[in-house]
Order: sequence, then C-alpha cells, then structure tokens
Amino acid sequence: MTALTDRPTQGRLLLIPNTLDLGSVPEGQPLPDLQAVLPLGALQVAARLQHWVTENAKTTRAFLKRVDAVTPLQTPLQQQHIEVLPRPPKGGGTQTPTAPAVWNNLLAPALAGHDLGLISEAGLPGVADPGAGLVLAAHRAGIAVVPISGPSSLVLALAGSGLNGQSFAFVGYLPTDGAARTQRIRDLEQTSRKLQQTQLVIETPYRNAALAQALVQTLSPQTLLTIACGLTLEAGWCRTLPASDWRRQNLSLPDHIPAIFAWLAA
Amino acid sequence: MTALTDRPTQGRLLLIPNTLDLGSVPEGQPLPDLQAVLPLGALQVAARLQHWVTENAKTTRAFLKRVDAVTPLQTPLQQQHIEVLPRPPKGGGTQTPTAPAVWNNLLAPALAGHDLGLISEAGLPGVADPGAGLVLAAHRAGIAVVPISGPSSLVLALAGSGLNGQSFAFVGYLPTDGAARTQRIRDLEQTSRKLQQTQLVIETPYRNAALAQALVQTLSPQTLLTIACGLTLEAGWCRTLPASDWRRQNLSLPDHIPAIFAWLAA
Repeated sequence: MTALTDRPTQGRLLLIPNTLDLGSVPEGQPLPDLQAVLPLGALQVAARLQHWVTENAKTTRAFLKRVDAVTPLQTPLQQQHIEVLPRPPKGGGTQTPTAPAVWNNLLAPALAGHDLGLISEAGLPGVADPGAGLVLAAHRAGIAVVPISGPSSLVLALAGSGLNGQSFAFVGYLPTDGAARTQRIRDLEQTSRKLQQTQLVIETPYRNAALAQALVQTLSPQTLLTIACGLTLEAGWCRTLPASDWRRQNLSLPDHIPAIFAWLAA
Repeated sequence: MTALTDRPTQGRLLLIPNTLDLGSVPEGQPLPDLQAVLPLGALQVAARLQHWVTENAKTTRAFLKRVDAVTPLQTPLQQQHIEVLPRPPKGGGTQTPTAPAVWNNLLAPALAGHDLGLISEAGLPGVADPGAGLVLAAHRAGIAVVPISGPSSLVLALAGSGLNGQSFAFVGYLPTDGAARTQRIRDLEQTSRKLQQTQLVIETPYRNAALAQALVQTLSPQTLLTIACGLTLEAGWCRTLPASDWRRQNLSLPDHIPAIFAWLAA
C-alpha cells in the first residue's frame, strides 16, 4: 500500500532491433529471411506490441509485415500506433533541443501502462542512430528500458576486424571537406597509436569510396585498416590489411551499401 | 587458370555468437531458450560446423548441445574438433606474443577447406573477449572472415543507456587499486566531457559493487551514469541516473552476474 497504488502500472520501453538490409534489395525482389539475423525472441516481443516510436514510419510498417510472416502480430498493422522521432540536430549528441513535452508525449503509451517499442531503420536504436533522447527521457520518467538483442554493424565489424576489441571508440562521421577529413584521420590515428585503441567510423554509402581513398592515402603504411561492407548481407565482406596493402588493391566499394571503417595504428 | 588452382578451396572463419547467460543459471535448472537471443540463422551456421576454436572447450560443448536441441548438429558432438585459444596476455591488446605458427595451426582446418567456427563464452568473439588474434591471423592468411549476428552486452548497454550513441568508447577494465581507479575514472570523465563521448567499462562480477561505489563517489553529481546488469536475462535491468541520484539509492549489485557501466559527463 504505497502512495503509488493509484497510478496505472507503467509499460516498458522496448528497444527492438531491426535488420541491416535496408535498401540493399532491389524493389520487387524477395527480402532476406528475418530469422537469419534476428532472434525469434525479438520477433515475438515485436509481435505483441501495438505502440511504436520510430525513425521512419514506412520502414517500420515494412518491418512489421515481415514480423507478421514469422509470428502473427497481435494487433493488425492498420491498428498499430506509430509515432515518429523528432529529427536529431546536426552533429548528433544527446543534448538535443527537443522539449521534454515532446518526449513525454511520445512516452504517453508507456506512462498509461502499454509496452512501447522503439525502432530505427537498421540495427539497434540509439547506437549510431536516433533514439537515445527518448531512452534518456524514459529513464528520467522512471520507465523501465529493455534493450533486445539484434545485429549491430559496428560490433560485427569490430569482431570481424581482428583489431583490438578490448579498447575501441566509435567516432561517427568524418568531415566531408578533404583537408579537414585528412586532419581528422591523422588525429584519430594518433589517438589509436597512443591508446592502442581501435577507431571506428561510418559514412553515408555514396561517400564510401571517397572515404576509403582518404583513409588509404592518409594512414601510415603499417596501420591496420578494416573495411566491412554490407555485413549480414549475402554479398557482405570484411577485410583487414595494412594501409600499404590496401593501396595496391583495386579498391571498389558499392555506393548504396553501408560500410564501417576501422583502424588500429601499430 | 591461376597459380592458385592446385590449392584446395579455403574454408571461412565464422564468428559464432554465444548467449550472455554463462553462469547465470544455478546447476540443474533449465537454461533459457537459445532462440530468445540468437537468430535461427546463427544456430543453423553453427550446426553445420565440425571444426572450432574456442575460449573454453567445456562451455562450447554445452553450447553445441543447446544448438542441437533446436537444429540437429550435422556432425555428432563426439566427432567435433574443438581447439582452445592461447590465453591472452594480461591487459589485453592484439599485440600478443603468440607465435604465427600457433595461429596457423589453429587455422589449419580453414586452410584445408573446412569452415571453422570461432566462439567465446559469451557474446561475440573478439569483442571484450579473446579471439581477435586469430581473426587477424585469418586476414593475414587470406581466409574470409564472417561475423554472425548475436547479442553483445556492450551494445545492448549502450542502446539501453540513452547516452551518446554517436560517439562512445569501450575502455575495458579499470585498475583494481582504489587510488589508481579513482584517478582513471576522473581521467575518463574528463575525456567524456571534452569529446561528449560515452565511456563504457566492464568489471569481473565479484567486483561490480566496488566499482559501482567508486563511480558513484567519484563522478561529478550531474554526470549521467548507466548500470546495465544481466542484460538479456530474466532479472536483467538497465538504469541511467545522474551520479547524485545514484548516491541516494540503496545500490545492491549481484556478485555473479556481468554488468556494464557507462557514463557521459554534462
């Protein structure tokens, strides 16, 4: 008998993993089996929900259709409540200017007792992806947060790299301006050398080739560079070579498939 | 018609994810369903293998028994070839003193044309876990490396934290000596403040409570501290609060369940 007994039991914020195949399959061709990369447990949790907050409502509906084909949705797609996250500010970070009222509106179903799913377009929400602001607001509101296991391109690239997995940093995107990018690569290589820390970055797919060239040209010859392209996809691959060896490769990267770049200075 | 045609086709090195429930279930009690956290695709890949390199042969056999209950093993457990990784040097890092011949012996099945599985006791091999040395040796030998999607306690803790997922660093273990640990926490808080970078660390479970106390006492009051304990387990939880709020909690952490600690300075 506490002062809280007249409050409805709160729902939880469930962080639902998505696949890594967004945009990788041409229109009209069959999508890969969800169960290749997502645990049945995650699909069962997703199939029970009827309230969602998402990066993109259209891709979330497409995801729910794929879930339904494995584990029928408890609430039909047409009756699902899907709200969209506010666009994050340029440059990322959690100090978004989003007003607390916006988060609390999005969290309303959980505050009213319903489990609420948070999902992004690929991988786990809040990891190199929007969603962290809502998760933090949930903690502030005392809502239980439950991350559900699924694929993460960062951690798959790190495992596949053979680089230091005891100390690593993900630093997001590099500058797109050539000179600024070169300087940033030099700084991050220095950090990697000093801390023996693997550095990981991502890039918008259409800039993959430009970033790969900049890395190959800028990094010291003996620095180990990993390129992980389209991990979990049929044509995905992951390769680690000294920068000097990459220079001798006829390097060609697709402009529509996400890639992760990682390096460790000798 | 190249000079390589008389070489047998190489096998691949497949990085097989494990669950995060090692040691969490008392002897004699049923283990959680593998499919709660592992994709069917990962289990099917594991069930086709007959050559393994592992952190621990006993836990790998236990894993294969669990796989067999979902997807029958193509090669009976008694006929599986399971080799154990050399113990990593204290302090981690990829610059192990392991001789190349040791790695090449372990990679022999792949060089002879068989797919080879690498697995650790929990999560993904090579991520806060042994295995990176073998992966790097595989890249050096031109063996294709294929990381398979599965749970990672680090990435689940990060997603669940609501802290900055656009810039984060995992820095392994902190010193166990009190004064050195306090200094390291201060240094890492300074790094977090300067780069607005989430810092993540792990600890041996029996030291969880001591590390939590040190963090709560050392971090600035407004620094956000996440404790993620036993993620993916029934009793798992994940909570983010300002350090000053943690100080007012009657904080009790189990001494046998892995925890992840993360913080972001204001």
